[in-house]
Amino acid sequence: MPVGTQATVKSLSPGDLLAAGTQIILGNTYHLSLRPGHERIARLGGLHRFMGWDGPILTDSGGFQVFSLAHLGRVDDDGVTFASHLDGSPQRLTPERAIEIQEALGSDVAMAFDQLVDPGRPPDAVEAAMRRTHAWAERCLAARSRADQALFGIVQGGVDPDLRRASVAAIAGLPFDGIAIGGLSVGESKAEMAATLDVVADALADDSRVRYLMGVGSPADFFTAVERGVDLFDCVLPTRVARNGQVWTDAGRLNLRNARFLDDPGPIDPGCACEACRNHSRAYLAHLFRAEELLAYRLASVHNVTYTLDLMRRIRSALADGTYASLRDVVTEQYASTGSGSGKPPITDR
Amino acid sequence: MPVGTQATVKSLSPGDLLAAGTQIILGNTYHLSLRPGHERIARLGGLHRFMGWDGPILTDSGGFQVFSLAHLGRVDDDGVTFASHLDGSPQRLTPERAIEIQEALGSDVAMAFDQLVDPGRPPDAVEAAMRRTHAWAERCLAARSRADQALFGIVQGGVDPDLRRASVAAIAGLPFDGIAIGGLSVGESKAEMAATLDVVADALADDSRVRYLMGVGSPADFFTAVERGVDLFDCVLPTRVARNGQVWTDAGRLNLRNARFLDDPGPIDPGCACEACRNHSRAYLAHLFRAEELLAYRLASVHNVTYTLDLMRRIRSALADGTYASLRDVVTEQYASTGSGSGKPPITDR
Repeated sequence: MPVGTQATVKSLSPGDLLAAGTQIILGNTYHLSLRPGHERIARLGGLHRFMGWDGPILTDSGGFQVFSLAHLGRVDDDGVTFASHLDGSPQRLTPERAIEIQEALGSDVAMAFDQLVDPGRPPDAVEAAMRRTHAWAERCLAARSRADQALFGIVQGGVDPDLRRASVAAIAGLPFDGIAIGGLSVGESKAEMAATLDVVADALADDSRVRYLMGVGSPADFFTAVERGVDLFDCVLPTRVARNGQVWTDAGRLNLRNARFLDDPGPIDPGCACEACRNHSRAYLAHLFRAEELLAYRLASVHNVTYTLDLMRRIRSALADGTYASLRDVVTEQYASTGSGSGKPPITDR
Repeated sequence: MPVGTQATVKSLSPGDLLAAGTQIILGNTYHLSLRPGHERIARLGGLHRFMGWDGPILTDSGGFQVFSLAHLGRVDDDGVTFASHLDGSPQRLTPERAIEIQEALGSDVAMAFDQLVDPGRPPDAVEAAMRRTHAWAERCLAARSRADQALFGIVQGGVDPDLRRASVAAIAGLPFDGIAIGGLSVGESKAEMAATLDVVADALADDSRVRYLMGVGSPADFFTAVERGVDLFDCVLPTRVARNGQVWTDAGRLNLRNARFLDDPGPIDPGCACEACRNHSRAYLAHLFRAEELLAYRLASVHNVTYTLDLMRRIRSALADGTYASLRDVVTEQYASTGSGSGKPPITDR
């Protein structure tokens, strides 16, 4: 899912998203409730009509942003008090309120309100946040009133296998329409992410619901997660790194700000059929980035979103025709170099 | 002609320009020769291929920018020495060099190199610049070597009727493919512009070549000029004011940053068929501008370019069917209010 934080995937139009093969996008409850306001969006016909996107939309619950972007006030068993990052105004989010906002936005998939904790916190803090997340999950289910909106629960528990197993048992035991895996891609190592996904995959082995890994990922991360049964992802990386000039290709990462591209007449990626690759050269993009022209951000974003969705399609094909391992090895090698652009994205962008 | 200063009409793709009905665009010789360099563009196949625009391109001669944007060094009868606005490096532009650069860019229409002077300068300074412009015009004609590139001469002479008549006589007496009117929309009053265009129109009465009014205009200015025989315009206004939230409509100018649009479900202009008006509401645009989302600049630019080209089409139709006067009165009234956004555009943008 390309991420449309403020009711737009940065620099892209709905037409660009369709041309890139986008099937579903993500909207941010926290941002939209503060600006332009979910009541306003509801009055204007809901988020789909507001942003001109007819396809499916998943909204997050606001939990991630409240615990990372807002100026956190007080967390209690009922909910969270915080100050808006826009104007410092006092705000309150509870499980019931998170559902109310998402129902006003009218997304196709809503997310339960969870408590995020830094994986570096002491085990008892991670466990306390997990137990609160479980209690809030039940309240979210009780609060929902729209029959036309799916609701996904979120598994927490940090990188502790026992806590993760306990969290899967609690969340998967509830009548959610899908299961999300939260609390990863927040600073833990790649090995910890993989080990945690192993635990979750085992615990969900007999569960047929869709599995969504939140906040992931980079090209290599997709393989780590797909092998462990993940179906759905969201990440700002493709568009965020694009705005810095980094494009993802079958030759690995390229930075179009590099002087060597100023005379390169070839497309960003010869195998790509996106608007940028069809119509423009690396030399043109390199010029646009140096001239700080807005078209640079858009064309690089079009390409990276196309690359990402194409990669997922190639993964599905490779699984079907038995070539998955070779695809994984090639792409993982291409994206194993340093300067990855993966890791924790800036909080304001997520 | 929408203006593509740095090989892109700001925030728009070639596809956007085509969808808006664009027939020809303008490229800036001064900017492109400094970055990415006209030799580089020539190596990459010329400006059309470089920017992915298959339609006609007119390039200016660099004269306007040298006398307004660069740090001017010395003007002599041979040419102009100046310092690049990018890095302060010393640069030299002569009539021969201006033609050489435009031939390297490969535009369909090149412009003669002229000397601009502020209309507030003393009459002898205006006259001296005009005489130098005439001498340079002959040198530009002598320097041209491409048979596939038209060359337009530029009439100068400030707002003095006698100088303007003398300039028309000199420039129209040369074998240019078209006649441009320079030195207007640079600070003179609307009445002075109209009076000067009257003088030029009279002097060109028996001349069938295309007439191009440089750096104009706003919606009301088109009527002033069309009535006096002008065929072709360029201006950054439609895209520049769009990036500030100002859109041009059949209800006059609207500023989408105004709070009253935050709850307005209607399109920017109900009579417009552009992408922004077809797919999005004023409320959405107002949100995007407040959230400083890149899509705001693009959608408003798409609309203003579409409005401007539609207005020219409406003017042509009205001339054909005898309704010109009523169209002029309606549009002039709509755009007569203060806060015009017309007048002298910022130099860096032109």
